[in-house]
Amino acid sequence: MNDTKLNPAINLERLKSTFDVSSSIGATEGGGITRLALTKEDIEIRDVFVKWLKEANLSVKYDDLGNIYGRREGKNKDAKSIMIGSHLDTLPKGGRFDGIMGVLTSLEVIRTLNDLNIETERPIEIVNFTNEEGERFTPPMQGSGVVTGNYDKTEIYNLRDKDGITFEQSLKESGYMGEIENRPSNVDYFIETHIEQGPFLEENQKSIGIVQGVKGSKRHRVIVKGKSSHGAFPNSHRKDALMAASEIALAIDETAKSYKDLSTSLGVFDVKPSVESITAESVEFTFDVRHIDDHTKDEAIEVIKSKINEVASRRKVEVDFRQTWVASGTYFSKEILDEIEKSVNSLSYSYQYITAPALHDAKFMQDITNTAMIFAPSKDGLSHCEEEYTSYEDIEKVANVLLQTVISLSK
Amino acid sequence: MNDTKLNPAINLERLKSTFDVSSSIGATEGGGITRLALTKEDIEIRDVFVKWLKEANLSVKYDDLGNIYGRREGKNKDAKSIMIGSHLDTLPKGGRFDGIMGVLTSLEVIRTLNDLNIETERPIEIVNFTNEEGERFTPPMQGSGVVTGNYDKTEIYNLRDKDGITFEQSLKESGYMGEIENRPSNVDYFIETHIEQGPFLEENQKSIGIVQGVKGSKRHRVIVKGKSSHGAFPNSHRKDALMAASEIALAIDETAKSYKDLSTSLGVFDVKPSVESITAESVEFTFDVRHIDDHTKDEAIEVIKSKINEVASRRKVEVDFRQTWVASGTYFSKEILDEIEKSVNSLSYSYQYITAPALHDAKFMQDITNTAMIFAPSKDGLSHCEEEYTSYEDIEKVANVLLQTVISLSK
Repeated sequence: MNDTKLNPAINLERLKSTFDVSSSIGATEGGGITRLALTKEDIEIRDVFVKWLKEANLSVKYDDLGNIYGRREGKNKDAKSIMIGSHLDTLPKGGRFDGIMGVLTSLEVIRTLNDLNIETERPIEIVNFTNEEGERFTPPMQGSGVVTGNYDKTEIYNLRDKDGITFEQSLKESGYMGEIENRPSNVDYFIETHIEQGPFLEENQKSIGIVQGVKGSKRHRVIVKGKSSHGAFPNSHRKDALMAASEIALAIDETAKSYKDLSTSLGVFDVKPSVESITAESVEFTFDVRHIDDHTKDEAIEVIKSKINEVASRRKVEVDFRQTWVASGTYFSKEILDEIEKSVNSLSYSYQYITAPALHDAKFMQDITNTAMIFAPSKDGLSHCEEEYTSYEDIEKVANVLLQTVISLSK
Repeated sequence: MNDTKLNPAINLERLKSTFDVSSSIGATEGGGITRLALTKEDIEIRDVFVKWLKEANLSVKYDDLGNIYGRREGKNKDAKSIMIGSHLDTLPKGGRFDGIMGVLTSLEVIRTLNDLNIETERPIEIVNFTNEEGERFTPPMQGSGVVTGNYDKTEIYNLRDKDGITFEQSLKESGYMGEIENRPSNVDYFIETHIEQGPFLEENQKSIGIVQGVKGSKRHRVIVKGKSSHGAFPNSHRKDALMAASEIALAIDETAKSYKDLSTSLGVFDVKPSVESITAESVEFTFDVRHIDDHTKDEAIEVIKSKINEVASRRKVEVDFRQTWVASGTYFSKEILDEIEKSVNSLSYSYQYITAPALHDAKFMQDITNTAMIFAPSKDGLSHCEEEYTSYEDIEKVANVLLQTVISLSK
């Protein structure tokens, strides 16, 4: 399929060996990686990454969040750049692919441009964002969050890990503290490749997911307050908070069926007193609702709210309902999506449009530049675990699409 | 209604003042009592109780469980006795009535027999059983449990409270350690009066509950094992243990509607990991099923089991199901029940037959002698709480029925 006369193609063997190096840094016994932001392991992959950037003749910079950039100049030095990349950090016992794939395919694209002596009109920049996972320091996406104005730098600097070390201190000690001037500027496009973290590409047997945007989410905390009874008290006369919460939980799950691409989930679910033969006095639970379209999301939440009220009134329990987090849905750049689709078609890969269910650095980058993502299939939809798997065949295709798209957009 | 010419009647003012004394020992600010077995408060009420027994010319004994007996001899010294009573201990912030009513109405019956110079054919014995509530030392009904052969004495003696004090030590220190010879023997009938601990007498506007028996119960522990997903993972593809457990919980609750007088309840309900935006990996819960008829109970459990299997298979979760406790249903003595009904009718009180939903000392006493219970209405069905309330009007009626029944059975 990859007719190199028509389509430039990446070097899969080289990309594999790059993955092998990455997979060996923070490797877990179960075949995953533990490489939390700015830890020893993260610093080790950063050092290797910088070496690779320099070997590819890129000029390397770090900004004041520790984001690492490698720049390949274009013919037109004043042209705005195309930025590609993702993040190299992982969760504890995370996978070998996730955002790593986004960085390594980007590196492979640049190496291929070098191999083929392709001089692009625009500069191409590769980026590794700091602490996308948000495990050592929470929230996630800190590197991209600050440089896009979504997070306050002082707040991020003052975050402490479980040992009391601040983000700022760990960044300084890592050797990757750079200048504020090095943050992204004059960027016209940002493209991030990533594994899907969902089952749809695999199920539909598609190699490429053209990501039209990112689902927004609204999170809620609900307290259902009933009245405990002895287990011998007649069922008909109880105000059993667990029965009310169970009905509500099922209704929230069911609501996902009513809207295409809507997802809902319950997370926290704490029953009190949770002792044998005493029915529940109260249940506190959290739930989220995710959809790219904010209106659809709000409509679903209204459906859930009225179900909650109906259950509360019928089961004679009280309900406290609070919204705790809002993230709007994000639509990516139609211009880039069209270019990606053209590239996929020229390579004759199977593809589908898809919505990113979870957040990525690209979600923030869309706030400052034209952005899009390309997904590779995840086996069984798994991610953030040692079993996470994406085949090299699929990674190669994504890398080729990225290469082609970068070349097109650079014209 | 109480024509004393025809029916001997108890002295309500005296009974009230007896309650007042009891209610003052371990009194809580909220109008209840905290009087755990063999604590300072329990010893104080025991001392008062023994004084009352002696003032009523009863011979007083304690057995090796600390059960206190007061004996009023009958005309026929060789005749087997009628035993009446219940327990004076409470739960933390328990109510003023509960089993206390059983002991104090029994005392009032004996005082009335004394007042009216009624010499019964049989001896009448009053009993206060030790640690019916089973809060300081678990399980409940220890005094009656050991003397009826349901519990092993050594095991009970070795139980420790939260401060590490054994039952045996606390019994010795209380001054109420007596002789094994003093356990119930030559008893032909045992009658316990108690508050209903349920809503039915009040709802049906009946003064007297003739308790035909005690529901048996079977308890179970269920572990539902699914697979955690990120909240962004599509609902349709999850193995959400919480959704499966919610369905099962509702089905268990619903089953109570299918059989008259069946009750079911969920107690423990622990969801893991119970963190925001991560669906449940597992839910461990306990449930019980109560009915007087063991066959009905087993049939209901089979219905629940097949529902659990159906849900598990449809939701692709694994279920571990264990039975952890069995107590058979108990049918009380038809002979006593008939006498109670005759007494109620002669007093023209409203009544209904009822099944005790929870366990009582009488449940164990039925193992060694003819037994029955008489219930008084509980306001709003509440018990084991400071709000527990039964009117003196209703207590008086129960005491009169007990008096009449004792006189009849003594003939």
